[in-house]
Amino acid sequence: MDAQALLEAVRFNEQGLVPAIAQDAETGEILMVAYMNKDTLRQTLETGRMTYWSRSRQEVWVKGATSGHTQEVREVRIDCDGDVLLFKVKQNGGAACHTGHRSCFYRKLEGDRLVEADAPVFDPAQVYRK
Amino acid sequence: MDAQALLEAVRFNEQGLVPAIAQDAETGEILMVAYMNKDTLRQTLETGRMTYWSRSRQEVWVKGATSGHTQEVREVRIDCDGDVLLFKVKQNGGAACHTGHRSCFYRKLEGDRLVEADAPVFDPAQVYRK
Repeated sequence: MDAQALLEAVRFNEQGLVPAIAQDAETGEILMVAYMNKDTLRQTLETGRMTYWSRSRQEVWVKGATSGHTQEVREVRIDCDGDVLLFKVKQNGGAACHTGHRSCFYRKLEGDRLVEADAPVFDPAQVYRK
Repeated sequence: MDAQALLEAVRFNEQGLVPAIAQDAETGEILMVAYMNKDTLRQTLETGRMTYWSRSRQEVWVKGATSGHTQEVREVRIDCDGDVLLFKVKQNGGAACHTGHRSCFYRKLEGDRLVEADAPVFDPAQVYRK
């Protein structure tokens, strides 16, 4: 994908970041939200593999580099004011979340409690062991 | 909905805001992303109607107050690290975007161009006229 038109349309925030939603291209399930800077956005478009900027580690984060749970870009969208990106992706390895859940949004509000709406699909201790 | 468990789990950013994704509860389509502060999140949970904090106008933004295109909350989710909210909603009036499109994410990347993937469903000049 040629990144130029998209890169020009993005309004990065004061930290030079834009939130990126990863949505399952097949099911419509929202898998996760993380951030990209200009370089990792360009890298994502060039490689077709979701590549974020880790705010906690302050480093390039090729999704799935450790876990094998990579995300392949199927479609790229931008919102009306250019400050959020939406990527429809193919999620490899079954899960997007480091907790082992398919989606990071596995907790939902029921009455006055947060409950686990979906069970984990892998054991993080096995995947992230050194 | 009792807001307390959710309010305690949210990690608001340095501006006191949290991004909120509105997803069509029926189709899974992502309609828009905007921000909530603690008060508008509480108001959203109490009223069941999506209520954002407008960063540009610096005011409470009851979605659809002007256009009639309100959003009714069907389900509330929070991500693993508590810094993004996902609301599954019923979109009234056919459109979430002030441009007249159903979704704010109506532009997609095709090759080196951004193209309009979906046609508008209303004429903003009619809806927002004074």
